[in-house]
Amino acid sequence: MTRVTIREVCLRDGLQIEAPIPLSAKLELLEAVVATGVREIEATAFVSPSKVPALADAAALAAELPRFRESHGVEFSALVAGPGGAGRAIAAGMGSIEYVVSAADAHSHANVGRSTAESTDLIADIARIAHENDATVEVIIATAWDCPFDGPTDPSRVLDIATAAVEIGADRVAIADTIGTTTPRRVTALIELLRPIVGDLPLGAHFHNTRGAGLASAYAAVLAGVRRLDASVGGLGGCPFAPGASGNIATEDLVYLLRDSDIGVDVDLTAAIHAAGVARRAVGHDLPSALLRAGDRILG
Amino acid sequence: MTRVTIREVCLRDGLQIEAPIPLSAKLELLEAVVATGVREIEATAFVSPSKVPALADAAALAAELPRFRESHGVEFSALVAGPGGAGRAIAAGMGSIEYVVSAADAHSHANVGRSTAESTDLIADIARIAHENDATVEVIIATAWDCPFDGPTDPSRVLDIATAAVEIGADRVAIADTIGTTTPRRVTALIELLRPIVGDLPLGAHFHNTRGAGLASAYAAVLAGVRRLDASVGGLGGCPFAPGASGNIATEDLVYLLRDSDIGVDVDLTAAIHAAGVARRAVGHDLPSALLRAGDRILG
Repeated sequence: MTRVTIREVCLRDGLQIEAPIPLSAKLELLEAVVATGVREIEATAFVSPSKVPALADAAALAAELPRFRESHGVEFSALVAGPGGAGRAIAAGMGSIEYVVSAADAHSHANVGRSTAESTDLIADIARIAHENDATVEVIIATAWDCPFDGPTDPSRVLDIATAAVEIGADRVAIADTIGTTTPRRVTALIELLRPIVGDLPLGAHFHNTRGAGLASAYAAVLAGVRRLDASVGGLGGCPFAPGASGNIATEDLVYLLRDSDIGVDVDLTAAIHAAGVARRAVGHDLPSALLRAGDRILG
Repeated sequence: MTRVTIREVCLRDGLQIEAPIPLSAKLELLEAVVATGVREIEATAFVSPSKVPALADAAALAAELPRFRESHGVEFSALVAGPGGAGRAIAAGMGSIEYVVSAADAHSHANVGRSTAESTDLIADIARIAHENDATVEVIIATAWDCPFDGPTDPSRVLDIATAAVEIGADRVAIADTIGTTTPRRVTALIELLRPIVGDLPLGAHFHNTRGAGLASAYAAVLAGVRRLDASVGGLGGCPFAPGASGNIATEDLVYLLRDSDIGVDVDLTAAIHAAGVARRAVGHDLPSALLRAGDRILG
């Protein structure tokens, strides 16, 4: 049976543009998420607290993670935008970091004030910081299909970042549909180009459901051989009911689809729907998850 | 280039469980839908006005259709639940009727007070009424994957209805995910079983996005060879923000995905997003369409 690892990102990508919520509410959400059986959780980001106030408590949250790691064997990761953040993540005890490189220059400048090439050059520093501390590093290639400023991303820009990541010794590579515009055929095409570059290195994919095609794209990625998918309970992430909405694909909707496809996942569907409800209470507004509204079907 | 015919169903499946809206509002929606370039529109249903009050004006609406047919070459159809409705549809000038047979007995009884076998037996009457009046008839197989009461539908029940439809001389066959529970792999599996039965007869598919997998299922159907898909502007249909929600897949979200897949459709994306806005105003509540919120991406 094919198995797919779902990485739960509600605590990072899900919360990052929400109004800050108390650490206690995050821990309640974390409890619910851990109870789903998920094995990997992106817990927070070590980035500028002024730019992302919702994740300003990264170190405090990191201090709470060892007990979940010990009790449930969950692997936690944190996103970073540069060597400074990587150092702080390691100092806070994170064993796995994700470094984002945006394939589109305009998005890269808007996001971190550097060009794609400058951000790519930093992969080596980040990897060194991680590996010297027995941590792993994943390079996430953002705006892998489209940029809100530059339009369609030339696939060669994605391949160049992946090539650098592999040469430098990154532990994993992922491609992210940052603004939720991609569709199955473009997903398949990019993965086919990446496959010879990443070789045996784990390749992940990260989709938003902004234009309704998130689950179709995720399924296309699995059919193309991807075995790691990010998802967020409730579809938390972005402001789904506002113009330009950008919710992550909902964990429970993804699990529902994969279960029907005879694809094994660690995440329990009922527990994921419960966690989506906890997420909805935590942020105090409705979430775009389909299963949170409709529930699982009655299985005969 | 592969081409897919989208049949717009907002005026029938979209409106049927909404509070009734005036005929003038339906005509405004129809104007917007015709402007998308769509070639086939399911305009209404000739069913019990007490059961479906929102479509009680079927004959009055039908009287308005010839001018759209003449000016834009649109083909209109109406859904019927039995010979009586078929007769009324023909009398009202409909040139194409859809007869629904539910593959699950419990749903069939709840829907029309007949067993699946009894409904199947009526296909011959309906086809005769249609063909004697130079109209075409499509047999739509409802609850093709799951029934809300009986659970999963045995595929043999679907195949039996399709076999009867083909033998009796139906002009088209379609399979409908009535309660929005199916997923791509199950879609592919059922289509592969149906293919040898329907042969060259056009095979359509009808999906709801109730559990988030509607677009993924529609795309799977296209990959499996289906060239006719139902969709509803705005994702109108059912009450998407209530428990057990059941919106149709949104026309504009489907067009967005198919456009990226180099699959030709008659529907213009910008006009479909506009029509979704008209639908939203017509019913007075938000709709689940992704593109209605996020808009098309900026194409470089």
